[in-house]
Amino acid sequence: MKNLKFSPLKKLEIILEGEYQAFATDILDRIGVKGYTIINNLSGKGSHGFHDGHLMFNEDDVLIMIIAAVPEQLVEPIMQGFAPFYNEHSGVVFVSDIQVTRLVKFSN
Amino acid sequence: MKNLKFSPLKKLEIILEGEYQAFATDILDRIGVKGYTIINNLSGKGSHGFHDGHLMFNEDDVLIMIIAAVPEQLVEPIMQGFAPFYNEHSGVVFVSDIQVTRLVKFSN
Amino acid sequence: MKNLKFSPLKKLEIILEGEYQAFATDILDRIGVKGYTIINNLSGKGSHGFHDGHLMFNEDDVLIMIIAAVPEQLVEPIMQGFAPFYNEHSGVVFVSDIQVTRLVKFSN
Repeated sequence: MKNLKFSPLKKLEIILEGEYQAFATDILDRIGVKGYTIINNLSGKGSHGFHDGHLMFNEDDVLIMIIAAVPEQLVEPIMQGFAPFYNEHSGVVFVSDIQVTRLVKFSN
Repeated sequence: MKNLKFSPLKKLEIILEGEYQAFATDILDRIGVKGYTIINNLSGKGSHGFHDGHLMFNEDDVLIMIIAAVPEQLVEPIMQGFAPFYNEHSGVVFVSDIQVTRLVKFSN
Repeated sequence: MKNLKFSPLKKLEIILEGEYQAFATDILDRIGVKGYTIINNLSGKGSHGFHDGHLMFNEDDVLIMIIAAVPEQLVEPIMQGFAPFYNEHSGVVFVSDIQVTRLVKFSN
């Protein structure tokens, strides 16, 4: 099938406080990530305490997850872009192997 | 442990505009997918522009992610079912390897 | 880069009815899981019927997904902790391989 192209990519799941969304997507944009999806209003518990999407008074404190599929060679520069941020803020980045069917939207 | 069964499956993460949810779940139902989970009100940026769950006037334009765990032999027919749709609409399908503990709910 | 540490972990995606969230996080806490993230208000279809975050009258019936990254040796005890629950309730656990950049937050 000519429409069906599988390509191995790395999936990044970038979890951070929602108030830093623009900071994070700026990093992705500058490195050339063409698409991402954002899950809003996550709750979480981590070493910096408990965040709950329903109980926080300041809505900006809720967590988000930015999901992006990128070529392997972009993982390192993205991680370097986020490293100083994560030295000072809550959150984590999960990296995993995926295949996508629409490579054109995510290639650099 | 007789209750604990690990089985290798493929996880599909099907991202598309929420207004096409019934179309997508119909494909899954027809191919025999027994269960799926849907994350609603995603934001996203892709080659078709920016979608934001909070800013769009038409709520139907928000993105959703349909998560399904399927036997490997179902990946190809599902992808073929979605290929014509993705030629004309925003979205992507991520395919990855997972193990699940309750195979009975996801086997064909 | 000294700030950038990749470590292989297992990602658990624990899907269950939201009313059992405290039960689930208690299991994780007792086994020593240091952090997790929760996606609220999922819809789902499975062998126990259809759950929809928008249509259920009792909000406690909506599904949640608890995402945790754990060392491999914790997967088995966590699964054993959840096995009796899943014998009687809807839901599933997906297990997959990931790498994370901030191991300190998820190590036992």
